Amino acid sequence: MSDAPREIEALIEMMAKLPGLGPRSARRAVLHLIKKRGLLMNPLAEAMQAVAQTARECLNCGNISTGDVCPICTSEKRANGELCVVEDVADLWAMERSNVFKGRYHVLGGTLSALDAVGPDELRIPKLIDRVTSEGITEVILALNATIDGQTTAHYIADQLDGRVNVTSLAQGVPIGGELDYLDDGTITAALRARKSL
Amino acid sequence: MSDAPREIEALIEMMAKLPGLGPRSARRAVLHLIKKRGLLMNPLAEAMQAVAQTARECLNCGNISTGDVCPICTSEKRANGELCVVEDVADLWAMERSNVFKGRYHVLGGTLSALDAVGPDELRIPKLIDRVTSEGITEVILALNATIDGQTTAHYIADQLDGRVNVTSLAQGVPIGGELDYLDDGTITAALRARKSL
Ligand SMILES: [Zn+2]
Ligand SMILES: [Zn+2]
Repeated sequence: MSDAPREIEALIEMMAKLPGLGPRSARRAVLHLIKKRGLLMNPLAEAMQAVAQTARECLNCGNISTGDVCPICTSEKRANGELCVVEDVADLWAMERSNVFKGRYHVLGGTLSALDAVGPDELRIPKLIDRVTSEGITEVILALNATIDGQTTAHYIADQLDGRVNVTSLAQGVPIGGELDYLDDGTITAALRARKSL
Repeated sequence: MSDAPREIEALIEMMAKLPGLGPRSARRAVLHLIKKRGLLMNPLAEAMQAVAQTARECLNCGNISTGDVCPICTSEKRANGELCVVEDVADLWAMERSNVFKGRYHVLGGTLSALDAVGPDELRIPKLIDRVTSEGITEVILALNATIDGQTTAHYIADQLDGRVNVTSLAQGVPIGGELDYLDDGTITAALRARKSL
């Protein structure tokens, strides 16, 4: 509740639903937007509508893209036999920023979780197993968060792929309990270079 | 840089300009919006456009409103002779949430600042002096932040109004260096009740 006009109140409530923004920072953000109506608020609303209309999940890997299949999946240059498995798109972006991985990705859409009742079929694990064969993958690199659920998921995938393909995981540099998207590019590069067989 | 498609990259850059959001939280917010396209992203874009079209500053007090003059300025009930002076609209909202002040407001739009070269004419101080006469104000309550610039501004306004009207300020409960918009409703209520003459 901010005692603002109804339209502004509604906007504040929606902004407060974004991760990282509470009611107070949502109010500050909306006042900032109102002050910068022409320069920021109108362009932001238009950019949001453009993205809402065009953004979708790549049918092959789960990356966010503007077509049915993302540019990484369609690029022949990225077909080097390496497939990097990440939990979500933010992690894929973090890997791309480090600029050291030249293969393709597979976005699981989360981790296995007994607590939240997330099983293999809730994730993109069956599709991952298909891709290993259909895309001639020689190495699956598990770049999952160093959390309990992330590591459980890594071991489950390694078991499923056992004998079919070389399965490695990011090793050195990922701190215990750490999340990939928080790491600097150097740490990600080091972890990728020092990857080990599972 | 997130290596997202161009449209998404543009949206992330705009989101990162909002106060309280850095590049990382902007990326997280945009991924969340893409996941909740129908439920959150489209409605948010529409709410932003609605506010961008309708929101404006009240010509009388500087409050954000959807008309030329805000509902507080047009309400006869609020014409009780008390005028509460705040730095910005977020502070007005904070005062209204405490639900204890029944008069009208005057939003300065900042504080006097030698460092940022903000003088009385950059703020709504001339208009404040007009209103004291034209609206028959009997008490001006200065509800400015307990910062150096806030207190300098309070003393400047008290000098300008000296002899014309009773000038008080929020007293008890505002912590040194504290900002009004961070306080809970009870603290604001206590500070208002214990206001003292300057
Ligand atoms: Zn793809
Ligand atoms: Zn007004």
